[in-house]
Amino acid sequence: MYILIDKKMPGPIYKHIYEQIKSLILSRHLKAHTKLPSKRDLAKTLDVSLNTVINAFEQLLAEGYLYSIERQGYFVEGIPEYEFTHIKATKTIPENLREKLEDRTGWISLSHMSANTENFPFKLWQKCQGEVIEKYGDELSNMPHPQGPYLLRETIADLIRSTRGVVCAPEQIIIHSSSHILLEQFLVLQNSESSRFAMENPGYARYYNLFQQYRFDVQLLPVDGHGVKIDKIDEKCNFLLITPSHQFPTGVIMPISRRIECLNWALAREDRYIIEDDYDSEFKYKTDIIPSLHSFNFNEKVIYMGTFSKTMFPGLRISYMVLPVKLLEKYRSHFHGLIQSSNALATYTLHKFIQDGHYLRHVKKMNNHYEMIREKLIDQLTSHFNDQVHVSSVPAGLHFLAYFKTKLSYEAIEEKAKQLKLEVYTLRRFTLSPINETQNDVKGILIGFANIREQELVEAILRLKQCLSL
Amino acid sequence: MYILIDKKMPGPIYKHIYEQIKSLILSRHLKAHTKLPSKRDLAKTLDVSLNTVINAFEQLLAEGYLYSIERQGYFVEGIPEYEFTHIKATKTIPENLREKLEDRTGWISLSHMSANTENFPFKLWQKCQGEVIEKYGDELSNMPHPQGPYLLRETIADLIRSTRGVVCAPEQIIIHSSSHILLEQFLVLQNSESSRFAMENPGYARYYNLFQQYRFDVQLLPVDGHGVKIDKIDEKCNFLLITPSHQFPTGVIMPISRRIECLNWALAREDRYIIEDDYDSEFKYKTDIIPSLHSFNFNEKVIYMGTFSKTMFPGLRISYMVLPVKLLEKYRSHFHGLIQSSNALATYTLHKFIQDGHYLRHVKKMNNHYEMIREKLIDQLTSHFNDQVHVSSVPAGLHFLAYFKTKLSYEAIEEKAKQLKLEVYTLRRFTLSPINETQNDVKGILIGFANIREQELVEAILRLKQCLSL
Repeated sequence: MYILIDKKMPGPIYKHIYEQIKSLILSRHLKAHTKLPSKRDLAKTLDVSLNTVINAFEQLLAEGYLYSIERQGYFVEGIPEYEFTHIKATKTIPENLREKLEDRTGWISLSHMSANTENFPFKLWQKCQGEVIEKYGDELSNMPHPQGPYLLRETIADLIRSTRGVVCAPEQIIIHSSSHILLEQFLVLQNSESSRFAMENPGYARYYNLFQQYRFDVQLLPVDGHGVKIDKIDEKCNFLLITPSHQFPTGVIMPISRRIECLNWALAREDRYIIEDDYDSEFKYKTDIIPSLHSFNFNEKVIYMGTFSKTMFPGLRISYMVLPVKLLEKYRSHFHGLIQSSNALATYTLHKFIQDGHYLRHVKKMNNHYEMIREKLIDQLTSHFNDQVHVSSVPAGLHFLAYFKTKLSYEAIEEKAKQLKLEVYTLRRFTLSPINETQNDVKGILIGFANIREQELVEAILRLKQCLSL
Repeated sequence: MYILIDKKMPGPIYKHIYEQIKSLILSRHLKAHTKLPSKRDLAKTLDVSLNTVINAFEQLLAEGYLYSIERQGYFVEGIPEYEFTHIKATKTIPENLREKLEDRTGWISLSHMSANTENFPFKLWQKCQGEVIEKYGDELSNMPHPQGPYLLRETIADLIRSTRGVVCAPEQIIIHSSSHILLEQFLVLQNSESSRFAMENPGYARYYNLFQQYRFDVQLLPVDGHGVKIDKIDEKCNFLLITPSHQFPTGVIMPISRRIECLNWALAREDRYIIEDDYDSEFKYKTDIIPSLHSFNFNEKVIYMGTFSKTMFPGLRISYMVLPVKLLEKYRSHFHGLIQSSNALATYTLHKFIQDGHYLRHVKKMNNHYEMIREKLIDQLTSHFNDQVHVSSVPAGLHFLAYFKTKLSYEAIEEKAKQLKLEVYTLRRFTLSPINETQNDVKGILIGFANIREQELVEAILRLKQCLSL
């Protein structure tokens, strides 16, 4: 057994001995069941301390390269044959999968998914988090409750009662990192044979994909100026997923008459429910907030979904779902062991942030800010595009839909936007049925205004003009 | 139309007018298409400002209770009939679903899922988070990358190369809030008809349930002193899920010979892969850390899973999976639009926390702390239970398995533990095949030592003795 000790080599000496014996074993220069020299002899030969040899031997024992027999010494383990020619993993990645650190310099965002963090009171957030660490350190050492901390659920129950008219107990609230995960859990509880969903078209494409992934039958319902056309719903459907406070993406606010039609539909059969996705209703301009559909929750027919992604920031990853008591029991028995996906520190901090009044103050401040940006953006749009634009102007939420007269295809528009560093989404993305573009010289563009600065507005319009060749 | 204005009532006056007109419409005291008095007349009659009436009317318009015709005025909308007798939601919850704010006073935890947060450097975490907010505020306003921020993935790639011998590119890393979600995504990519899994028994019950939820065929493989018995694997299996560095729950460290057997199994067929769940390998006592199976990742046959739940705290909710390039392409094309579930602030902060060296310092410090607690706990166990206990003592991880001589059933032990406020899990929970308890007077208990204080050790042992009637 030849072992080379060079005391100038980096790292502890026992590691060198360990590595060399390991290599000798793997390369079969040391055969199975060979007896190794005694620790003392080896220490002497190598001119190292006994402990150094012991450390090396112990590591080799722990990893199974050696075995020891009491009073006899250390022996080489019998290691199965294996091919030396196998390729080892490397860090090289094929060109098509390679990523770069994204450089956002020069980009302007008209995305509906962003939020403004320039105005977010991160200092207060830090302060709340500091207080939460002091107070709830113990809770942080345990796994969070599967539905999220009870404390935050209590706080959310109070919040949505006063702001959205949603009356529920904390027990009915389920917190997770996204509405997507919550809807997915809801789907897991249903039977894809007997349950049939209906949703809005245009609508939220991610949900549509989720239904398909779980092989649920989905009826796409058209949307008119009053929201989803409930009179078109198929008799077989028992779940209706809608965005009544600010239809996504058209922005339509569902009036009371259509709401009652939807509720009447749900009330007509025991297995029917409405899922209300209230994704950005906290922002309403000119008038007060529109009460949720859940506030008319007769016979507990409405499942309510809310999120803090829009009012706080998208990376917070705290959303929630309010289940009717009847469905809660089923949920609990199925998901009682599920791991909570929201960050515990963030959930406790959010609780404190709401309790201390920072949350509602921030929403109010942002409501004013967004109202200002929205108006300026619409002014700019109409003055730059004149009769080539029709803005579907419902004063609510964080985006509106604008229709432009252009012969360009959606694909061409999207491609050009990318080149011009303009982040913007077209109506194509949310049109869930096939579209015949040639029929139409009008293209819908979703204009999000949550993450655009006032001084960027003119440049955004200019890029949009270029995109549309107008 | 009778409207009562009492200026002493709380809230703005327009709200009172709005509420009363709304009620009159819903109760059909105001019939559909009735013309309302002009804004001026109503303001005069009620002795309020014109703006007050305008605000009320605008809100009613926005919600669809009224419609307006230019130069004619405001009219009541036609609202569909609905039953007034429906029951509205309340906050009352049936007894069986009711929760209380959990009171942990007096509880002692021997749970394997907890972590010690008393020693967590929250101040440094706060500091890193503050710096991250300054530096990456812009990134926080956008949706996080579906695989998690590239920055953190780079940092993780460096970390696991040096600590676990895992060689990979940041592109191959997928971050999500739990290993559970990551495995679930992996399952979604597979075909339940042609894919067959094998896992350890006893093993991680949550994974087993996940396989069943997704209707995958799972073979349960027995575990011996060298880990999973790979020679028992069914020819049809193509995925093997194992915990080679510290088998869960038995604690066995898989020696090199068994590792090579597993790799040889995977190398024998193109569609075979090993999923290595490296859930708590950062903690190793007496010797150095055992290299991961992934460090022998010939032909990219190993999928590596890691987590920060054990080294940091369980509520952090940051786990990751390293995919072979071949599987990455499939993952990307299926999940390119998926929403990242980990909190963005926490992911950036973790990046900074690791970069600044706080992470490895903390792990080292906790390794010493846990080693001390573990030894004291084993000492106490053996001195209190003598030959009634056999401790399966592998010096690694955050738990060990102890076998006690008792005639009590697992159910009785668990029930008693609850009464005595001792959080502890029995082997029953992780035994995935039916067990015949009567055959055996020995019961396995999982002893986690991550969240027990030194001064609680004796009390923990006493409660354990009571639980087991020993």
